[in-house]
Amino acid sequence: MLDPEITERIIAAVNERFTDQLAWTAELVRRPSLRAGEADAQDILEAAFSEAGLEIDRWRIDSPELRAHVGYGPTPVDPAVLENVVGTWTPLVERGRSLILNGHVDVVPTGPGEYWSRSPWDAEVVDGWMYGRGSADMKAGIGANVFALGALRTAGLRPTGRIHVQSVVEEECTGNGSLAALLRGYTADACVIPEPEDDKLVRANVGVLWFDVTVRGVPTHLREMGSGQNAIDAAYRVMGDLRALEAEWNRRKDEHPYFSGTDHPINFNVGMIHGGDWPSSVPAQCTFTVRAALYPGTSAADAWAEIQQTLARSAAAIDLPDAVVATPSGFFAEGYVLEEGSDAEAVLARSHERVFGSELESFTTPGYLDGRVFTLYGGFPCLVYGPVSEAIHGIDERVDVESVRRITTAVALFVAEWCGVEPITD
Amino acid sequence: MLDPEITERIIAAVNERFTDQLAWTAELVRRPSLRAGEADAQDILEAAFSEAGLEIDRWRIDSPELRAHVGYGPTPVDPAVLENVVGTWTPLVERGRSLILNGHVDVVPTGPGEYWSRSPWDAEVVDGWMYGRGSADMKAGIGANVFALGALRTAGLRPTGRIHVQSVVEEECTGNGSLAALLRGYTADACVIPEPEDDKLVRANVGVLWFDVTVRGVPTHLREMGSGQNAIDAAYRVMGDLRALEAEWNRRKDEHPYFSGTDHPINFNVGMIHGGDWPSSVPAQCTFTVRAALYPGTSAADAWAEIQQTLARSAAAIDLPDAVVATPSGFFAEGYVLEEGSDAEAVLARSHERVFGSELESFTTPGYLDGRVFTLYGGFPCLVYGPVSEAIHGIDERVDVESVRRITTAVALFVAEWCGVEPITD
Repeated sequence: MLDPEITERIIAAVNERFTDQLAWTAELVRRPSLRAGEADAQDILEAAFSEAGLEIDRWRIDSPELRAHVGYGPTPVDPAVLENVVGTWTPLVERGRSLILNGHVDVVPTGPGEYWSRSPWDAEVVDGWMYGRGSADMKAGIGANVFALGALRTAGLRPTGRIHVQSVVEEECTGNGSLAALLRGYTADACVIPEPEDDKLVRANVGVLWFDVTVRGVPTHLREMGSGQNAIDAAYRVMGDLRALEAEWNRRKDEHPYFSGTDHPINFNVGMIHGGDWPSSVPAQCTFTVRAALYPGTSAADAWAEIQQTLARSAAAIDLPDAVVATPSGFFAEGYVLEEGSDAEAVLARSHERVFGSELESFTTPGYLDGRVFTLYGGFPCLVYGPVSEAIHGIDERVDVESVRRITTAVALFVAEWCGVEPITD
Repeated sequence: MLDPEITERIIAAVNERFTDQLAWTAELVRRPSLRAGEADAQDILEAAFSEAGLEIDRWRIDSPELRAHVGYGPTPVDPAVLENVVGTWTPLVERGRSLILNGHVDVVPTGPGEYWSRSPWDAEVVDGWMYGRGSADMKAGIGANVFALGALRTAGLRPTGRIHVQSVVEEECTGNGSLAALLRGYTADACVIPEPEDDKLVRANVGVLWFDVTVRGVPTHLREMGSGQNAIDAAYRVMGDLRALEAEWNRRKDEHPYFSGTDHPINFNVGMIHGGDWPSSVPAQCTFTVRAALYPGTSAADAWAEIQQTLARSAAAIDLPDAVVATPSGFFAEGYVLEEGSDAEAVLARSHERVFGSELESFTTPGYLDGRVFTLYGGFPCLVYGPVSEAIHGIDERVDVESVRRITTAVALFVAEWCGVEPITD
C-alpha cells in the first residue's frame, strides 16, 4: 500500500503537469506515424526519454530470432526499416519490482479525409475530447506512461525498481514491435499498456490473423459474359464462405472462458479490396484482405489451417487452377487471457479505485493487443488499461481528456506502489 | 452485281497479298494501343494510308460539339490527347456510292499477364490463330479494311465512290472516337466495321453505360465492428440491387425486336473495384465500376435515370449522407438496330455468299459497337461484320487467320460493288 501522503503528492504532480502532458501528446499526434513512417514520432519519444534521464535504446527491429518466432507476423514491410525506442530507468540499488510501460507509436490510416470534421493531424481539443488519428490509439497512452513517470520526479520521488518505457511499432499490423522488444531481452515482473480501454482492464482478448485472398475469374468480353466468370463476383462468394466460418467460430464462444458474455467476439473484416482493370472486361482477378479473429488457446497455425480448409472448399467451386490463393500478410497472433489474482492486478485495482472512486472492472475485447506478447511469450502479467475513447480506427477518432488525466494518475500510483519509490536526494 | 472476271481478280489479289496483310497486322498488334497510348499504332495507319495514296486527316478528337452531343461518353481521359486518323480516297469523278471503312485501334488491358500462354504483344500465329491483345478486337479488322482497298489496286482497279478509311480511338470505353469522326463531317452512304463477329452481320446491339459507384461505410475499429458498417460489404449489397435491375431488364427482352432469342441480352458487369485502406479498419469507402447494357430504343438518359432510382433505394438503406454516389464514367450510349432491307446489306450478302458459299447470317450481340454512331446519328446503314475470334477482352485473345482472309475478300468485293470500280489507267 502506498503511503497516503505520497499518494497525494503524486496526484498533485500529475495535475500540475497535465497541461504540459496534453501539449506534448498533441505534438505527438501531429507527427503522422503511419506504418514505416514512425521515425519523426520516435524522435519525440527519444527526446522525452533523454530528458527524463532514461537510458536510450533505439534499434531496427529485424532479427533472425524475430522472423523465426511463432508469434511473428509475416509482412511485406521490411522489419529492417522499423525502429523501436526504449528508455530504461535503473535504480542505483534495485529493490522494487521491475516494470515495462509499453505503448505503440504506429497509427492506422485516416480513411477518406473529407469525412473528418477537422484535420486528423491537428490534435485539437473540443468539448473535452482530443481529436486526431492516434490521439486515443494510443498516443494519449504513451503520454500517460511518460508523464506518470515524470509525475514521480515532480513529486520528488524515484522508482526503486527497473523500468523500461517502450515506444514500439507494428502494433496495428503484426505485433512484431513488442515481440522484437521482448526478444531483445526486455522482461520485467509486469507490463502496463495504456491502450484506450474505457478506463477498464482487459481480461482476455482475441488473436488476429491477416491474410490476402486472391480469387481468379475467367476474363472475357461482356458479350460472352456467360462463358466468363467474374472474379469480383467470385470473391464475394468466397467472402460468404468465410462469413460462414466466422459464424461457426462465434457459435463456439461458450467453450472459451470470458467470451460467452461477448455478443460477437469473432469478427472477420474485409478491410481492403481491389480487382479488375477494365469496366467492359470480366475481371480476371480480385484480391481482398481479411482480418480474422481467433480465441485465446487456439494457435494461429490451427486457426489458419481451418481458414485454409474453408478456402479450399471455395476454390473447388471454381474450375481453374489456383482459383483461390490465400497468403498470411500481417498478424499471425494468438489471443491471451490475463489470469486473475496476480499481484500486479491487485496493485492496479487499488490505484484505480483511489483515482476513480470505483472498482476496477475487467472485460473481454475482440481486438488485437500486444499484451499477448508479454503474457504468452514473456510469462509475466500484462495489464492493458487505458482511457475512454471514441471512433478509434474511424472518422474523428478522439480521446476523453479527463479520462487521460485519471488514467495517468492511476498509472503513476501503480508505478509507485509496484516498483516502490524513494525520495530524490541528490 | 460485280463482273465475274473482276470478282476473280479481286479474290486473287487478296490472296496474293495475304502474307503481307498478316505481317502488317502482326506489326500493328505489336504496338500496344491501350487507351491514350494509341499514337504509335496510328503512325502505322497514317503510313499505310499515305502509301495507298489516301489524303490524311489526323486530329485530336476534342471539340465543343463532341462534348455537347447526346451520344458523348463523359470520361476522365481528356479527349484532347486522343487522335483519330482518317485516310480519304476521292475519285476523279465521283460516280459510285460513298463508304466509310471504320475500325478502332484502341485495345483493352491484358489482365494479369501470367495467365497468358504467350506475350499479349507478340502476335504469334499458332495453329491458324493469331494471338494477342487486339489481334481480333480489332486490328485484324483494320487490316481487312486496309488490304481490301489494297487488293483493288493490286487487281488494277480503283473505286469510283468516295471512301473514308477510319482508324478511331475510344471504341472500348466511350465511342467518342467514331462520334468525333462523324462530327468532323465524315458521312457516307454506308459504313462497314469489321469487328470480330464470327463471319456474321450484326442486326442489333445493346447500348452501354459505364458508371462508378462509391459506397460509404462507417469506419471503426474491429472491436466495435457492430457499430461500424463495412463499405465493402455494403458495396456488395448495392451490387445485388443492380443485379435485380439487370434481371428485370432481361425479363423485358420480349418487348424488343431481335432480343427475345438472346439468352441474356442485358449484362451488368462489375469490372473494377477498390476499397478500404487497412485490414483492421472497417472500410469507409468502396468504389466499383459497372458496365451496364440497355436495349436499342431506350435512351442512355432514361436507362441512367432507372439505374439512379435503384441506387437511391440502395442508399436509403444506409444511414449516411451521400451513402451511394454514382457518376457516369465512360459509355453513355444507346443501342441500335440495322434495319432490314438496305441496299448495303444486299451487296454485303452477295459478297459474303460468293466468298463463304453460304448465306450471310445476322444476329444480335449484347456488346457495344460504334455502329450506333453511324446508324443513329449519321442516318446511314452500318454493317458490323468481321472474323471469327476467341477470348476477346480475355486471356489468349485470338483471331482465325483463314476467317480474316475471307472477311477481307468479302469486304473487297463489297467495296468494288458498292462504290463501283474502274481500271487504273494512269
